[in-house]
Amino acid sequence: MSKNNLSLPKGTRDFSPPVMAKRNYLFGVLRNAFERFGFLPIETPAMEQLSTLTGKYGEEGDQLLFKILNSGDFWSKVNPDSFDNNARKLSFQISEKALRYDLTVPFARFVVMNRNEISFPFRRYQMQPVWRADRPQKGRYREFYQCDADIIGSDSLLNEVDLIHLLDEVFSKLGLRVLIKINNRKVLMGLAEAAGISDRFTDWCTSLDKLDKIGFEGVAREMEEKALGAKAIEMVSLVMALNGLSGIDEDVIEEVKTKVALNSSLEKGFEELKNIFQSLAAFRLNLSKIEVDLTLARGLNYYTGCILEVKVNEPDYSFPGSISGGGRYDDLTGIFGWKGLSGVGISFGADRIYDVMEEMKLFPEGLDQAADVMIANFNDEMIPAALRLMHSLRSLSVSALLYPDAVKLQKQLTYANANHIRYVVLMGEEEFKEGKLILKDMQSGQQDLYTPEKLIHFFTNL
Amino acid sequence: MSKNNLSLPKGTRDFSPPVMAKRNYLFGVLRNAFERFGFLPIETPAMEQLSTLTGKYGEEGDQLLFKILNSGDFWSKVNPDSFDNNARKLSFQISEKALRYDLTVPFARFVVMNRNEISFPFRRYQMQPVWRADRPQKGRYREFYQCDADIIGSDSLLNEVDLIHLLDEVFSKLGLRVLIKINNRKVLMGLAEAAGISDRFTDWCTSLDKLDKIGFEGVAREMEEKALGAKAIEMVSLVMALNGLSGIDEDVIEEVKTKVALNSSLEKGFEELKNIFQSLAAFRLNLSKIEVDLTLARGLNYYTGCILEVKVNEPDYSFPGSISGGGRYDDLTGIFGWKGLSGVGISFGADRIYDVMEEMKLFPEGLDQAADVMIANFNDEMIPAALRLMHSLRSLSVSALLYPDAVKLQKQLTYANANHIRYVVLMGEEEFKEGKLILKDMQSGQQDLYTPEKLIHFFTNL
Repeated sequence: MSKNNLSLPKGTRDFSPPVMAKRNYLFGVLRNAFERFGFLPIETPAMEQLSTLTGKYGEEGDQLLFKILNSGDFWSKVNPDSFDNNARKLSFQISEKALRYDLTVPFARFVVMNRNEISFPFRRYQMQPVWRADRPQKGRYREFYQCDADIIGSDSLLNEVDLIHLLDEVFSKLGLRVLIKINNRKVLMGLAEAAGISDRFTDWCTSLDKLDKIGFEGVAREMEEKALGAKAIEMVSLVMALNGLSGIDEDVIEEVKTKVALNSSLEKGFEELKNIFQSLAAFRLNLSKIEVDLTLARGLNYYTGCILEVKVNEPDYSFPGSISGGGRYDDLTGIFGWKGLSGVGISFGADRIYDVMEEMKLFPEGLDQAADVMIANFNDEMIPAALRLMHSLRSLSVSALLYPDAVKLQKQLTYANANHIRYVVLMGEEEFKEGKLILKDMQSGQQDLYTPEKLIHFFTNL
Repeated sequence: MSKNNLSLPKGTRDFSPPVMAKRNYLFGVLRNAFERFGFLPIETPAMEQLSTLTGKYGEEGDQLLFKILNSGDFWSKVNPDSFDNNARKLSFQISEKALRYDLTVPFARFVVMNRNEISFPFRRYQMQPVWRADRPQKGRYREFYQCDADIIGSDSLLNEVDLIHLLDEVFSKLGLRVLIKINNRKVLMGLAEAAGISDRFTDWCTSLDKLDKIGFEGVAREMEEKALGAKAIEMVSLVMALNGLSGIDEDVIEEVKTKVALNSSLEKGFEELKNIFQSLAAFRLNLSKIEVDLTLARGLNYYTGCILEVKVNEPDYSFPGSISGGGRYDDLTGIFGWKGLSGVGISFGADRIYDVMEEMKLFPEGLDQAADVMIANFNDEMIPAALRLMHSLRSLSVSALLYPDAVKLQKQLTYANANHIRYVVLMGEEEFKEGKLILKDMQSGQQDLYTPEKLIHFFTNL
């Protein structure tokens, strides 16, 4: 048999049953949490109009879009002189659609197109694959799932609090200790303003973001090289004093005041952080911890208030990247002409979370069993009784199957083992005549004699 | 606000929360049945190598593939003289991938690529969207779900029986009465052979398939025009005598023998049908009926034994198309070089089933409630208590949310109604001071006073 050089497109994956069992478990935990929190599901098409997507992810993002070739005679509409042998120019003439790149832009489009049917604040969740023509590497795929929850049409910070609770709920259910890092763009802006470098905000943040890796000295040197001024470096010390705090209260703000004059941005930012921590004090988070990290520069062009990022926080395991993140945006739908619709959202990186859980062996045992019980196939005579038994079991939500061929028992038992089926029913000729069955526990090897009624009772009480 | 001419690609759809609630219900019933029957889930990527898909669906199918434009500078690899201004030729030079067209070819590829990890007979299910550049029309989309269950690597007819039981299980759970039509390609071949027209098998079947629409006279006339001969038309009478039978037993076969000499194809085909009906007699189907329909010409180039098709069978509702179908194939993976792997499968047309259920109002009530309970927001003072109450409810699997803004109560109640939330908790200042809450039933309008403990008790016993 030749494999015919079969392959999958680069960066894509098949999911076989054992992997699917775990993925379904993970998605189930997410969906369950979303629904208990009162989020509503939506789905959007895999393909969007190219015009909906282009220009929304920066120049680099545009290049990573998977474009769909127009059907039919697409070439007849092209004037060969019109695109100067430029593939990008040509692509817009022969392609009108592309695969979605994330869930945020399609969500914004959905909101604008369905605005009359939506009652705000709209709490939506969405779990669908996205596609990016990125260079594949370990843990980075060209097809991967995003699992987003957003609350739009409300400025209340209780929404930020709800999403932090959602993060804690999901990761605690998964058994994963995480550190939720929180920042606020207004604080960052206020600090830059206090340093007189508002016009070089992004420059300053980019250096600040490296604090973790290159330390104060490194950041200071970089800021010097960028000629950001002494005040900019002073602010880094302030950031370091605040980072790692597990709360912002009046005392902290008073302390800050001794070091920098509060401008309105700083005031607003600290007020928001204080407010969120105040609400969070209503009850303890489960397995998660939360702390301030003013270096978080995630989505700076996008987020306008709270910024969240989630890191693995396990004593014996480290994972470099973030596994979830999000923030507050003031203008979700402005790109489509509806200005000023505010919201806050988070995104769970399902594929990364999967990898972490797999490496930490956090998935429950037994997810990959094909069925609770398999009925072995001895001969045609027993089939009607076997079918009836199987039907009764399935009706009672016991998953069951009958081995379809009357092959050697050993082969059937091997099949049960390979499919992680713990119990096998044997309808041996002798027992069958007496209306009895043998139940074999594949784990212990034990065999017991049952009537069909008692067997059903056994499984429904398992 | 301008809508910016936003639109969706032709033939694709957004699914808003009320629709998603119903779709999730439908997919849940399917998944639950698949798993109770011991089928294992797999998923394959949305994109396949173009070479994996082309030539597998006939010439028409090839044209309906959505091709993905290669990333980067795809044009530099094209010699403008090499494709004679032929779009199809060019497409193979600038596109290496396409969106999957069905789940069968990707499944065959999966099986070949993973053959060493699979224990046969392999029972797999797969529920994923597929894409076809078909002309969109009512009930036909360019993106739609297929939900397939297949059992491969076993010739046993018990697999056919299991799939018929699965059909009955799913449609009965959905509350939909269906007629399962069964045919066998060997019977059709045998009849053609008996009429001496084996070489014109497809011609004959194509006419036979119209029996339903144009009656015996019409079919006979068409067969005459095709010069298929008198015997071919005689066979149509035989088909009509057998059609609609709810079983094939020895008596039926004896009766057939009086009209046509049994060749080995006929013998085998009838034997298979008899065998299947025999096993089906072990217990009654629930809401479904099954009957012979020898005119079923579904997938004739593909199916080699049993052919199944499911039609709506409701007294007060008719739906023209089939909502599910499948059959036995002798050679799933031959296209990829692995000959002779036999299997049998069925496919549920989820989008059509959805349409039928929607029109017949078969979806359960209350699927679209956003949450069990909403806590109204009166003022900041009550927030910590509200958060604690919400947390307790959610911990007990009650879905709950807190309205994020302290706006007028009427607006909050309108929101609860719009989101189909039946219960609203009111923490009025007076009651709150006494540690009490009011629970408002939005359906009856009734309001009752509760302690938080009693309220939690109320919801966990709902």
